[in-house]
Amino acid sequence: MNMLINAAGTVVADALRGMAAAHPELVVDAENRVIVRRDAPVAGKVGLVSGGGSGHEPLHGGFVGPGMLDAACPGEVFTSPVPDQMVRAAAAVDSGSGVLFVVKNYTGDVLNFAMAAELAEEEGLRVASVLVDDDVAVTDSLFTAGRRGTGATLFVEKIAGAAAEEGAPLERVEAVARQVVTGTRSFGVALAPVTTPAKGTPTFELPAGELELGIGIHGEPGRERRPMMTSHEIADVAVDAILADLRPDAPVLALVNGMGATPLLELYGFNAEVQRALAGRGVAVARTLVGNYVTSLDMAGCSVTLCQIDEELLRLWDAPVQTPGLRWGR
Amino acid sequence: MNMLINAAGTVVADALRGMAAAHPELVVDAENRVIVRRDAPVAGKVGLVSGGGSGHEPLHGGFVGPGMLDAACPGEVFTSPVPDQMVRAAAAVDSGSGVLFVVKNYTGDVLNFAMAAELAEEEGLRVASVLVDDDVAVTDSLFTAGRRGTGATLFVEKIAGAAAEEGAPLERVEAVARQVVTGTRSFGVALAPVTTPAKGTPTFELPAGELELGIGIHGEPGRERRPMMTSHEIADVAVDAILADLRPDAPVLALVNGMGATPLLELYGFNAEVQRALAGRGVAVARTLVGNYVTSLDMAGCSVTLCQIDEELLRLWDAPVQTPGLRWGR
Repeated sequence: MNMLINAAGTVVADALRGMAAAHPELVVDAENRVIVRRDAPVAGKVGLVSGGGSGHEPLHGGFVGPGMLDAACPGEVFTSPVPDQMVRAAAAVDSGSGVLFVVKNYTGDVLNFAMAAELAEEEGLRVASVLVDDDVAVTDSLFTAGRRGTGATLFVEKIAGAAAEEGAPLERVEAVARQVVTGTRSFGVALAPVTTPAKGTPTFELPAGELELGIGIHGEPGRERRPMMTSHEIADVAVDAILADLRPDAPVLALVNGMGATPLLELYGFNAEVQRALAGRGVAVARTLVGNYVTSLDMAGCSVTLCQIDEELLRLWDAPVQTPGLRWGR
Repeated sequence: MNMLINAAGTVVADALRGMAAAHPELVVDAENRVIVRRDAPVAGKVGLVSGGGSGHEPLHGGFVGPGMLDAACPGEVFTSPVPDQMVRAAAAVDSGSGVLFVVKNYTGDVLNFAMAAELAEEEGLRVASVLVDDDVAVTDSLFTAGRRGTGATLFVEKIAGAAAEEGAPLERVEAVARQVVTGTRSFGVALAPVTTPAKGTPTFELPAGELELGIGIHGEPGRERRPMMTSHEIADVAVDAILADLRPDAPVLALVNGMGATPLLELYGFNAEVQRALAGRGVAVARTLVGNYVTSLDMAGCSVTLCQIDEELLRLWDAPVQTPGLRWGR
C-alpha cells in the first residue's frame, strides 16, 4: 500500500505542520499536539474540547473554529491522545465559564479524558464530559466497552458548539450535547479494509466481493460479512439497524458519511437510497450532509447517522459555523 | 473492487438524485443532467456554466451556487456531457447578460462546448468560452490535444464566479478567467490506479511500491514511473515541474488536492512539504486549500496547483462563496 508520507512515525506531526500552514485562523501547537481557535479563550463562552486518535479527519481538528470546537487533541493514528494534551487544551480555551469534553466511547479516550478532567479541576477549571456512543452495530468491540462513538460526534460538536457560541452556560451546553447523544444512532459498512501507516498492510482481511456490515471506524469487526450488496440493499440494512434501536418520532438530521476512499459520486448515489429507505419507513429528514467527515484513513465504505431533532436543535444545527471541515452561514 | 453502487449504468443518475435530496438550494434536473442554482437566472448577472465527465466530484456540480458556477453539466463517468445539456444550462442561467463556458481541455469537452456555444448563439444568447489547460506534466495525452485541464478549473470557477456575482460584464468575467488560466499550473501523481464502474477493474496497472508522476485525472499516463517516494520528494518533484514552466513573480494561491482515496491526514502532511518546497524556492503563498476537490474516483494520489495572483484576484478569491463543495464568507 503506497502512502503519501515521509515515515510512519512522522505522519501526525507532518499533518499538524500542514494544518498550521493552511489554516492561519487556528493555532496549531504541533509539539504539544493541540489545535485551538485563534481567538480563544472567548470571554463568557464555554470551551468545547474534543480529541481522539488521528486518522478520522476532518474529525476532530477540522472541526475547530467559531460555532463548533474551541480545541482538539489529536493522538497518534487510532490511538488516544494523552491527558496532558487535554488539560493543555482546556486551559487554553477556558474563559472562566467552564469546559465541556466531548468523548467518543473508546476505552483509552474515556480513561484519559477522565484523568484530564480531574487534573483540570485540580487547577480550578469547571469541567463536564459527554460520552458519545451512537454505533448500533455491536457492543463491546475491540477498544470499546459498550457502544462505539462514531458519526454522532459531528452532531454533538456542531450543535453543542452553537449553543456555546451563543453564550449558553456549561449546564445548558452539556444538556444539549446529551440530548443529541440520546437521539442519535449510526451504522457503518466497509467495502475495503483500512491500512495504518504503522502496519503498512490492511488491518483486517476483506476479500473482494464481500463487505463487512457494522464496521467500526478503526476497522473493528462488525456484525457479519456478506457477499457484496447493492447501494439499495446496504441503505436498507443500515436504516433498519438504526430504526430497530431508535424509532424517531420527530424529523432527523441525516449524515451520509464516507469512510475515506469511497468516491463522492458513490456517496451521493448512496444518499438517494438512504432517503428512499427513510421515506418508505415514514422518517422525515430535515437536513442532509453527504461527504467524508468521520473517516477511517483509506477504508472504503460508508456510514449512516440519524439525529432526532426538535426546533431548538434544528436552529442550533443551522447556526453559522466556520471550521476547515464544516462551514456555513455568516 | 467493491463499489457503493446499484449498477454501473445508474451511477450518475443515482448520484444526481442524491444531490437533489441533499441540496435543496440547487435545482437538479436528473433527467436532463443539468444542475442549476435555484435563483437562476440572476438579473444583470453573467451566467457561469461548466461541466465535464463525472467522477471528479465535487467538481463541477459541487461548485454550483452563489459566487461560483450558475450551472454544471455532468457527463457519464469520464465522458464529456453533450451539447444539449450545455445549451439547456446556458438558457437556464442567462439573464440577458451573457454566459461564460469554462471548459477543461479534453477533446470531447472542447468539441461539445464549441457546438453548444454555436447553438446557444443561434438562440440569441451571447456566449464566451475559456479553455483551462494547466497540467504541465504532458502534452497530447489520451483524450487531449495540448495540456490537460485539472486543478486550475477550481480557481477559474471561483474567481470568475466572484467577478460575475459582483455584476461584472461578460468581457470582464472572461478576462478574469483568462488571467487565472494564464497564471495557473498543476502537477499530479498517482499512488494507486482508478477503477471506473463500467470497467470494474483498474484502468491502468500500478504495482505497489511504484508511483506515476504526472498522472491525469482519468488515469492518463504521466511522465514516468518510479519506485515509491516520500512525501518530501514528491513535493519537490511537483513544485519543480510547475516552476520550470511558470516562475511566479507574485504570491500564489496553492491547492493541495487529493485524487480521492488518499486520506486527509496524508494530504495535510503533504501540504507541509509543498509549503517547505515553495518557501525554499522563494515563492510566497497567499492562501492554501487542502482537500479532495478535483478527484478521480478512487485513485490514490495528489496534485499541486499554483495560481499566481494580484490584489484583485486575491480579493475575488476571498469573496463569499456558497456551494456544496466550497463555501466561506457571508
